[in-house]
Amino acid sequence: MTTETATVNLVTAEAFLQNWQAHRRLTRKVIAAFPEDQLFTFTLGGMRSFGQMALEMIGMAVPVAAGVGTGKWGGFEYGKPGTKADLLALWDEQTPLLDEAFRAIPPDRFWLVTKAFDQWEMPGMVMLQYSVDNEIHHRGQGYVYLRALGIEPPVFWERD
Amino acid sequence: MTTETATVNLVTAEAFLQNWQAHRRLTRKVIAAFPEDQLFTFTLGGMRSFGQMALEMIGMAVPVAAGVGTGKWGGFEYGKPGTKADLLALWDEQTPLLDEAFRAIPPDRFWLVTKAFDQWEMPGMVMLQYSVDNEIHHRGQGYVYLRALGIEPPVFWERD
Repeated sequence: MTTETATVNLVTAEAFLQNWQAHRRLTRKVIAAFPEDQLFTFTLGGMRSFGQMALEMIGMAVPVAAGVGTGKWGGFEYGKPGTKADLLALWDEQTPLLDEAFRAIPPDRFWLVTKAFDQWEMPGMVMLQYSVDNEIHHRGQGYVYLRALGIEPPVFWERD
Repeated sequence: MTTETATVNLVTAEAFLQNWQAHRRLTRKVIAAFPEDQLFTFTLGGMRSFGQMALEMIGMAVPVAAGVGTGKWGGFEYGKPGTKADLLALWDEQTPLLDEAFRAIPPDRFWLVTKAFDQWEMPGMVMLQYSVDNEIHHRGQGYVYLRALGIEPPVFWERD
């Protein structure tokens, strides 16, 4: 069966998007679990606060989907909110925008090489995968912050 | 273009495997970056050591690919090594075994519902995706441990 692996289609674009949105729902719960006064201040090992990491995720998701879809990029910009409520509101605002931008990607652009944020050259799909993986990576770090703060993080396998 | 998203095939089985192995190469670097005397002992927030997390990843990767491919599962078991050298050796041993088990998955079994480790019922592909995401999640936690130990972690975007 070995020879078939290369051509078996495993993930449709829509399934990829659904998996990403499921991860975004979990990330939202992690943001929500932080005490207001720790979200943008608590750190370990000289790293960024989880609030700052979440603003990076916001700076990536919709701009990456739109950039892959259109080939038009601007420089990378973090999301801007400074309070937990603002961050959650911006997160929710991005949810339908991500669906829209992602579903507007012309199929032939997923594997077209693009220059993400006018800086990083790679196929669109590689940048999309990177954005999801980056979110999982930093959210895992948010779990450590929560544990260190004595707070039980949301269950990893629940994505509702 | 919206209506096309559902049917665009974005990730082949082989591309999924390649992405997983790329993540495994990065995880290996994270294991290697830990001082021998901290790998199985250092923790934050009452969490597991990174060595223990890596043994969980080993308990998942090949058994999940083999289980999805054959429908035969045993109960979940952690990898066993107690030294860094043993862990790295086991990690490397698993690399070709994962290729082999994954490439042997009959295409029609990826979306067949299976009972992973005789406990968790879900389509094979969901369990495979979960295994990769779980590795990224815990490896992100390993980054925090390394930073807290004053060690610069490997660069996230390098997967060579």
